[in-house]
Amino acid sequence: MMNDTDLTLGRRVMAMIEDLARHTDEYGRLTRLYLSPAHRAAADSTLELMREAGLSAHIDALGSVVGRMEGADPAAPALLIGSHIDSVVDAGRYDGNLGVVLGIVVAEALKAEGIVPSCAVEIVAFGDEENVRFPTNLSTSYAFAGRYDPAWLDGRDADGIALRDALIEFGGDPLGVAALARDPARYRGYLEVHIEQGPQLEASDLPIGIVSAINGITRARAHVIGEAGHAGTVPMNMRRDALAAVAEMIGIVERASSARTDTVATVGVAQVQPGAINVIPARVDFTLDARSPDDAVRLAMVQDIVTECEAAAQRRGVSFTIEPFMESPATPMDKDLMAQLEEAVESTGFEPMRLASGAGHDAVAIANLCPSAMLFVRCKGGISHNPAESITAEDADVAARVLLEAVKRIVA
Amino acid sequence: MMNDTDLTLGRRVMAMIEDLARHTDEYGRLTRLYLSPAHRAAADSTLELMREAGLSAHIDALGSVVGRMEGADPAAPALLIGSHIDSVVDAGRYDGNLGVVLGIVVAEALKAEGIVPSCAVEIVAFGDEENVRFPTNLSTSYAFAGRYDPAWLDGRDADGIALRDALIEFGGDPLGVAALARDPARYRGYLEVHIEQGPQLEASDLPIGIVSAINGITRARAHVIGEAGHAGTVPMNMRRDALAAVAEMIGIVERASSARTDTVATVGVAQVQPGAINVIPARVDFTLDARSPDDAVRLAMVQDIVTECEAAAQRRGVSFTIEPFMESPATPMDKDLMAQLEEAVESTGFEPMRLASGAGHDAVAIANLCPSAMLFVRCKGGISHNPAESITAEDADVAARVLLEAVKRIVA
Repeated sequence: MMNDTDLTLGRRVMAMIEDLARHTDEYGRLTRLYLSPAHRAAADSTLELMREAGLSAHIDALGSVVGRMEGADPAAPALLIGSHIDSVVDAGRYDGNLGVVLGIVVAEALKAEGIVPSCAVEIVAFGDEENVRFPTNLSTSYAFAGRYDPAWLDGRDADGIALRDALIEFGGDPLGVAALARDPARYRGYLEVHIEQGPQLEASDLPIGIVSAINGITRARAHVIGEAGHAGTVPMNMRRDALAAVAEMIGIVERASSARTDTVATVGVAQVQPGAINVIPARVDFTLDARSPDDAVRLAMVQDIVTECEAAAQRRGVSFTIEPFMESPATPMDKDLMAQLEEAVESTGFEPMRLASGAGHDAVAIANLCPSAMLFVRCKGGISHNPAESITAEDADVAARVLLEAVKRIVA
Repeated sequence: MMNDTDLTLGRRVMAMIEDLARHTDEYGRLTRLYLSPAHRAAADSTLELMREAGLSAHIDALGSVVGRMEGADPAAPALLIGSHIDSVVDAGRYDGNLGVVLGIVVAEALKAEGIVPSCAVEIVAFGDEENVRFPTNLSTSYAFAGRYDPAWLDGRDADGIALRDALIEFGGDPLGVAALARDPARYRGYLEVHIEQGPQLEASDLPIGIVSAINGITRARAHVIGEAGHAGTVPMNMRRDALAAVAEMIGIVERASSARTDTVATVGVAQVQPGAINVIPARVDFTLDARSPDDAVRLAMVQDIVTECEAAAQRRGVSFTIEPFMESPATPMDKDLMAQLEEAVESTGFEPMRLASGAGHDAVAIANLCPSAMLFVRCKGGISHNPAESITAEDADVAARVLLEAVKRIVA
C-alpha cells in the first residue's frame, strides 16, 4: 500500500521539528537537558506553536508545556496527547519532540477541519523524560499522575545544582508541584507517538506500529572471581579463569533471552582484571540488562540466568555474585486505545503491527493516571540518542494521519 | 617416599637465596632489573659466593656472572649450569636465583666430597631473562649461543636510557659482547633448575619434575566489530553484539586448547566498547596467547581457532580480524640429559614426572649452543612473579641432591 497523500501534515511536522531543533545548550550539537536555558527556549517555542494552533496554553510549575482545546461537553473527560522536549547529550531531533509536534499538528488539523471535539484535547510537552541531568525518573509526567516525590526537588545535577533551584531559575514553582496532579476522572486516555528507537518497523517495511507494552526492566551487576595465573604454566584443567566463566555466562544470557518472545537481555559491560595477555583473568565484573513486556517472563528469565550462571560458576570453581539494583515492572498499554489505534492504522492501508517498547516513555508514568497507548514511528537504522536519528516526511505524514484518525474516533 | 636427609644442601640453598634477596632497586619489595644497581650488587654477591665455592669467577661483558671449576681433562667439553638473577618488578626471590644458587651449592658439594670432575663445570648467572627493562629477549644467554643482535645495545628503557649506556654504567663492555659467544664443541650440556611457576607438581604431590620441552608461543590481537544498539529496543535476532560473539570465541579458544595435551590458550584481555549497561557492545578487542611443546599442535590449534571464530563471526554478522604478532617455536629438551635427570630423580626415591614448561627460560637460548635440560621445583600454589612466590627447604634439598646426582653422572 503506497502513501499517496500530498504530505501536508508530514511536512508540517518536519518543519516544527526543525524549528525546535534550534534550541540547544551546546553549540554544534543538540543537547537540551531538563530546566536548562535551551529547555526554556524550546518550551517557549512550543507554547507559541500551541497558541498559534488555537490552544489555550501555559508552562506549568515543573516546566511542562500544556495546551488545551475545549470540547463540546465541558464535563467529558479529556484526551491527553504528548511526549517530551528534553533530550540526551548529543541527541537526535525526533526523540520526544515528534510526539509533542504531532499533538499540535493534530490540534491544528481538527481546527482546520472545523471539528469541535466532544471532550477537551490537551497537548503536553513533558520536560524530564531522559533522566540525564537530575537523579529523577519521568518526574514531570509522574507529577500529572500525582506521584511526584518532593524529595526529587533536592536531587542535584553534576554541577551540584539542586532541581529546586534550577526550577526556580527556569521560571517554575516548587510549591506548585502538588497542584499539577490530575484527577483521573477527568482524563479518558493518553496517546503518545514516539520514534521506535529500534529496527523492527524498518525490518517489517512498515512506517508505524502499535506499542503492546512498555517493557519491564531488571538491571544487575555481576562479579565473577577466579584465580590469576601464568597463561603459560597453568594447565587448562587447573584453571579458574574468570573470563572463560563469564564467556559461558554471556552465552547463557543470550540463549535465555532468545528463547523468549519480545524479551531481550544484554551484557553491555565486562571489565577484566588484571587484563594482561599472559595472565589468566582473575576477576570480571559485568552488567545485565533484561527486559520483557511480561513481568513474569522477565523474572523467570532472570532467575533461570542466575541459576545457570551459578551452576557454571560452581563447575568452574569460580565465585559468582549478582546484585539486581533496578526492577521496573512492565506497563501494558490499554487494550481499547490499542484497538482504536489499530483501526486508525488500518485506515491508512498499513498493516497494524504490534511491538513491545524496549525503552521507557512518559506513558509509563501517565498509565497511572489514565488508559494509555503509544504509536511507534519507523526510524532509520533503529538509531536514536544520536545525531543520526532520522525519520522521513512520508512516515511523519502517516503518523499524523493515524493520530488524527484515532483522535477523531476517540473524541467523535 | 620421604625425604629424610638432614637438609644440609636445602638449608644452604635457602640461605643463599635470602642473601641475594637483599639486592633490590626498590625499598620494601624485590625489583632487580637488568643492569640496575641492584643487579650489580647481586652480581657482586654471586661472584663472592662462587669464589667462596672455589670457582674461578668473573662478571662478563654483558653482566653475566661466570664461575668455573676445572675438570681432570682440560680438553673435555664443559658442563654448564645456571639460570638468571634479574627479576620482574615486585618479584619473588626464587625465580632465576634458585637455579644459580643450586649450581653454586652443587659446586660446593663436589668440592666438599673431593670430587674432581672429568670435565670443567661452569656456573652462570645470566642477567636479562625477564625482559622487563629493555626490548630484549634472553639477551645474555643468547650471547653465549653467539646470537646476540648488536641492535639490542641500542634498545632503550622507559627512561630513554640505551642498553649500551646502562651496560657501561654497570661496568660492562659493549665491545666485548661478540667474544662471549661459546664454541659449541667446548660444551657438553646445560642444566637449569627453575621454580615451576605452575601448579602441576603441587597437584601431583611431587617436589621436582623434568621439563620435556619449553612451549612455543603464538600471540595475537583480535578485533570483533558488530553494531551498537539500544539494549531495550533491538530484538535478539537482529543484534550484531560484538561481546556475545567474543564470548562464543572465548569458548572456542578454551575448547581447542583443552582438547590438546600439554597445550594452553588464554584470552587475557577483552576490552568492550562502548561499555554501557544499556548499549549493545559494538566492538571488542581481545588477545590470544597459545602455547604448546609441539609446534605443529600449536599451529594447528591456532588455525582451528581462527577458522571457528571466522565461522562464528560470519554466522553473527560481525567482522573478525586477528593479527598474530609473536611466533616463538618450542624448544624440546635434550633426551639424553633428560634421561640422566630422570635417573637422578629416581635416586632420591621420587617419581620422575615430565612436564612441559609454559614459560620461557635461558635454556631456550642455550639450546642453540649445546644440549639443554631443565628441572622444575614445586612452588607454593604455582605462584611466581609475586612476593608470595615460595618453595620449601625440603624441596630445595631434593633439587640440590638431584642436581648433584645428575652432575656426578654426567661428569663422572
